[in-house]
Amino acid sequence: MNQNVLPGAAPDLVAFHALFDAVARFGATPAGGLHRLAASAHEGHARDFVCDWLRQRGFSLRVDPAGNIFACLALAGEDAPWVLTGSHLDSQPGGGRFDGALGVVAACVAAHAIARAQGMPFHRNLGVAIWTNEEGARFAPSMLGSGVFAGQYDFGFARAREDADGVTLAQALALTGYDGQDRGPEHVAAYLELHIEQGPELERSGVTIGVVRGNWGTNKYLFEMTGVAAHTGPTPMSQRRDALLAAARLVIACRALSDATGGRLLTSVGRMDIHPNSSNVIAARVTVFVELRCTDNDELQRASRALEGEAGRIGIETGTEVAWHQVTDRPAGSFDGALCQLIADVASERGLKAMDLQTVAGHDAVSLRARCPTAMIFVPSKDGVSHNEAEYTSARDLEAGVEVLCGVLARLVALSPGS
Amino acid sequence: MNQNVLPGAAPDLVAFHALFDAVARFGATPAGGLHRLAASAHEGHARDFVCDWLRQRGFSLRVDPAGNIFACLALAGEDAPWVLTGSHLDSQPGGGRFDGALGVVAACVAAHAIARAQGMPFHRNLGVAIWTNEEGARFAPSMLGSGVFAGQYDFGFARAREDADGVTLAQALALTGYDGQDRGPEHVAAYLELHIEQGPELERSGVTIGVVRGNWGTNKYLFEMTGVAAHTGPTPMSQRRDALLAAARLVIACRALSDATGGRLLTSVGRMDIHPNSSNVIAARVTVFVELRCTDNDELQRASRALEGEAGRIGIETGTEVAWHQVTDRPAGSFDGALCQLIADVASERGLKAMDLQTVAGHDAVSLRARCPTAMIFVPSKDGVSHNEAEYTSARDLEAGVEVLCGVLARLVALSPGS
Repeated sequence: MNQNVLPGAAPDLVAFHALFDAVARFGATPAGGLHRLAASAHEGHARDFVCDWLRQRGFSLRVDPAGNIFACLALAGEDAPWVLTGSHLDSQPGGGRFDGALGVVAACVAAHAIARAQGMPFHRNLGVAIWTNEEGARFAPSMLGSGVFAGQYDFGFARAREDADGVTLAQALALTGYDGQDRGPEHVAAYLELHIEQGPELERSGVTIGVVRGNWGTNKYLFEMTGVAAHTGPTPMSQRRDALLAAARLVIACRALSDATGGRLLTSVGRMDIHPNSSNVIAARVTVFVELRCTDNDELQRASRALEGEAGRIGIETGTEVAWHQVTDRPAGSFDGALCQLIADVASERGLKAMDLQTVAGHDAVSLRARCPTAMIFVPSKDGVSHNEAEYTSARDLEAGVEVLCGVLARLVALSPGS
Repeated sequence: MNQNVLPGAAPDLVAFHALFDAVARFGATPAGGLHRLAASAHEGHARDFVCDWLRQRGFSLRVDPAGNIFACLALAGEDAPWVLTGSHLDSQPGGGRFDGALGVVAACVAAHAIARAQGMPFHRNLGVAIWTNEEGARFAPSMLGSGVFAGQYDFGFARAREDADGVTLAQALALTGYDGQDRGPEHVAAYLELHIEQGPELERSGVTIGVVRGNWGTNKYLFEMTGVAAHTGPTPMSQRRDALLAAARLVIACRALSDATGGRLLTSVGRMDIHPNSSNVIAARVTVFVELRCTDNDELQRASRALEGEAGRIGIETGTEVAWHQVTDRPAGSFDGALCQLIADVASERGLKAMDLQTVAGHDAVSLRARCPTAMIFVPSKDGVSHNEAEYTSARDLEAGVEVLCGVLARLVALSPGS
């Protein structure tokens, strides 16, 4: 591995904190979190602020029809391959201010530091990517913008996604000024993403840098339980076809599947859409959003089949119709080994403890893996808490992440074409 | 019982159907149901239409600060006692067109027929009541307007109720033009309400007229399960404090309580409010709307205590905080025996089969019982279906109900003061 370090490519940590804090104000909640849904006014304003910062520092901005932003520095000339780094600015409802935003702000500051570095020829270009709708809270599926860039979805599919009010992504992007016509860089040599861990492993181990070696497999489903609306008073129990009872049994069944593995299989129901959701009407229809995650793809598939079987039994026993479709089928997989080694090397040079991890959550980097060599850097999450206003990473850990990201990017752009 | 029948006090059934069909157009759904929430624009328009119909026929209209409408015919002079009849015009979301509307329209047509009757002195006045927010779907609690009139709540409480968007009843009434300053009649001699059964007993028994002898006891609760929002991916199962898992277990526990009684105790969860309700966030807070109903007040109280105990255990086992408060405490009780007998007599005279029933659902008549002698007449619901767009009662059964209502009212207003 090339050991050249770019002289002067040290990130401006004061600028990092200033930009991070500024971005955290858009959609800030009183409890210190964020409520900044994808393509909302708040996210649009955060994007405006970051884009201004980038333009003022010489980045050239492109926005594609999925609303993905590419802030480009053609350091080695337009025909050279690109190294991309970034993350997302959308949050969960009542989420935290580090998830996604850290990767975007760190990318900006690191790329700017490298562009200012003197004394070394660049062999690759450098771009900051801000992906659309990573969270999947407003539009399903999650990781939508990065999925388009990686070839998993086309622009038309992404633009037609609707939120709960029937607003399409295309309409929402137009309202915020991010309905673009450009395309991202074609030849991508590598993608790197810095992110908070959102789990407890780094903190528990007293380690600052997580080298993310791969991702857990994830299956996501929508189960639709259909009963019959009826008065909760005079309708005899034996006549009821209660979609909410069926949904509750599915929630319990999901948990039991995980319990049977001692928690090795993660199962979750975070959302149910209940109709009509009136206190004295037996529910006519409930959509249950189910997630299954596992490191072992075979175990994941077995659990998925078991859940489908259990859902069928619940339907029969509750007199409801049960249908489902799978919305995410993301097998466990690995990130690029050479990039992972480079992250570990840079951390080691800086005297930072590093450890290998797997990401349980999906990230834009998991999308990008299908298109180019990809890796992720994790920094600790206090108490493992995320998707919560109390999400927190210390300034020291944030800075360590920014420095490692910058060091890795510097080596990648300085690599000669054959290395 | 006075056997006088008012000559000419026959309801105009053509006018009944015309008014019923006209009212059913306000908030009509494509599937033949109604979506006409309390104090909504649709309900306001339905009220306007009915009020115009009444004014044109000589009724004098008063609207009180809870939005209750009293359409008054001072047949026996302002100081005479009043016989009231009516129901409500609000519906469940996606509800049926008979629930409530039948009782209002029948009251209008019956009262008009009696007012036109010749040849007999009136000893009592007659009024049509249209109660506000019976359903409880938009504002909690249900039976709000009738509860105010019966002395259960004061006007200030009712006017301050908020819907899910924070709109108060007072604001909604002002928007629809039904924020009144009048008061309803003071001296009420009797209240009668015609309603669909919303259950299967009459149809199953081949009987047209239900003489409602009393109401089941009803306890309603809000259970609040509080967990911790967290990412559904990296958060280990053992660390989760999942409010939706706790809520699902409460739904199952409610059903089990009913099953243990063979269905004698009715238990229902029709609504859950889930926060943040995002597919990859473990739910931080779920409000569960629970109803328990039973003919036996002791059994109802025992079941309520058992549910509270079970909720506490669920909280401990899921690591969530569980709190609850009871929003309705309506013991089982009886309607007025003499009025019930009068209903049975009038049905018998008309050759209509009648049977005694209890109402499982709450109705405005259940509120009124606290203020005056009260009774209810039920007509069959096809397949027992209600709170559903498929709710249906045949024209023949509707007409039977209107005729019995009219016959009973005619006797009540013609009764001499001492009878």
